[in-house]
Amino acid sequence: MTRQKLIELIRTRRTYLCVGLDTDITKIPRHLLSEPDPVFAFNKQIIDVTKDYCVGYKVNTAFYEALGLAGWEALEKTADYIPSTHFKIADAKRGDIGNTSAQYAKAFFDTLNFDAVTVAPYMGEDSIRPFLEYKNKWAIVLGLTSNEGAGDFELSSTIDNEFLYEKVIRKVSTWGNPENLMFVIGATKSNWFTQIRKIAPEHFYLVPGLGAQGGSLQEISTKAMNKDVGIIVNASRTIIYASDKEDFAAKAAAAARQYQTEMSSFL
Amino acid sequence: MTRQKLIELIRTRRTYLCVGLDTDITKIPRHLLSEPDPVFAFNKQIIDVTKDYCVGYKVNTAFYEALGLAGWEALEKTADYIPSTHFKIADAKRGDIGNTSAQYAKAFFDTLNFDAVTVAPYMGEDSIRPFLEYKNKWAIVLGLTSNEGAGDFELSSTIDNEFLYEKVIRKVSTWGNPENLMFVIGATKSNWFTQIRKIAPEHFYLVPGLGAQGGSLQEISTKAMNKDVGIIVNASRTIIYASDKEDFAAKAAAAARQYQTEMSSFL
Repeated sequence: MTRQKLIELIRTRRTYLCVGLDTDITKIPRHLLSEPDPVFAFNKQIIDVTKDYCVGYKVNTAFYEALGLAGWEALEKTADYIPSTHFKIADAKRGDIGNTSAQYAKAFFDTLNFDAVTVAPYMGEDSIRPFLEYKNKWAIVLGLTSNEGAGDFELSSTIDNEFLYEKVIRKVSTWGNPENLMFVIGATKSNWFTQIRKIAPEHFYLVPGLGAQGGSLQEISTKAMNKDVGIIVNASRTIIYASDKEDFAAKAAAAARQYQTEMSSFL
Repeated sequence: MTRQKLIELIRTRRTYLCVGLDTDITKIPRHLLSEPDPVFAFNKQIIDVTKDYCVGYKVNTAFYEALGLAGWEALEKTADYIPSTHFKIADAKRGDIGNTSAQYAKAFFDTLNFDAVTVAPYMGEDSIRPFLEYKNKWAIVLGLTSNEGAGDFELSSTIDNEFLYEKVIRKVSTWGNPENLMFVIGATKSNWFTQIRKIAPEHFYLVPGLGAQGGSLQEISTKAMNKDVGIIVNASRTIIYASDKEDFAAKAAAAARQYQTEMSSFL
């Protein structure tokens, strides 16, 4: 998906919500467990009822890998089922030496046809570049994450008196451009957005951590948006686990619609 | 596998070689492509002929994921086939917020029964800790990697006048111990081993980058060993692609045997 198409979808649908499919088989409604593929059955219903309120879906690969082969099959079916009118993110946090990152890029862009994959920056340029070489595909590189562990290294100071995450964003920005590169900036770090926008004013940010992790939509929206909107805000648990009963789809739809309503007021 | 068991296997078999199963379907001998599962057929023969010369196998998940469902199936079969007398590493470079890392740990330790998984440190403590909570399982955390990109962030200086990779090793060491934590230190970085041993004297290092990436076995062995050996040295391409013809298994065995012979001289 191109940057222009993504912006159009956000403007038309009046939402920059991404629904996170962190589907944990121990948390889905029990009546789905008799389905041949409970995880996919759950995702299918979630997608059906939320697609009017969001601009994308983010599939967290860990929850699928935990189930082994059956999980990878649910991942493939889910990736196939997400409509082409939605930005499709593999939240996989991959990154390795160049020849290996090229295989990960192939896995997520060619084999699974995702639009974007999240990438860990620790190993540097050759670990990220293979993801930037696909036309109309995106690397979403970890910048400042939403978790407490962000304090351990991301917020450690470099000799140039900047934080490591700032160095990462500054340097990685020179390897890609706002058409093929985004950054992950956690919703819980909204106080930092103004500073981050100085380093990467044009790029889209994928902002996870809304809801269960405590980020505020208003703070994110007022501090992180740029003229092209420039943010995709992800919510997972507050939408997909809004209910663990038979009404889960209706409750998920209501939660997504509520985010969409609030987001439309910021657009 | 316990640390003591690993050391016993190294001493008994007189080798600290790890064979890297970075199995690329475009590089395996063509006669295997008619097999129902060419990647597993290849791995099975490689394991059969190299197991006397190595102490472990390292499966690079990227090459399997690139093939989609069939690849994940080959990964599962390969993990099953590696003998329990060998240290079984998932080279997966995973790492995410705590609840997600817990799912990755489940995937590789419970579902696939690996002994160890490689982990990226960027996101800090809660991204690593779930891997350290399994009895007799190992997190192998990226320290200083073998690739050129290591210069971008790992070798950037912190305000405390140490390199980022040193800070990572120093800090991560406090979260685990030499019984459940190793570090990845690239074979191409042998000049740094003396300094790294000052920070983490007891830990095992997984040392990739031998052969195709240019690392020297003699340099690694003389500079990085500790009293418990303390290193597992990985070779992938120089063993598994020693020949692309029908004699590939014999050639792989010869390459592995040669490493084993050299290693036994350093023990």
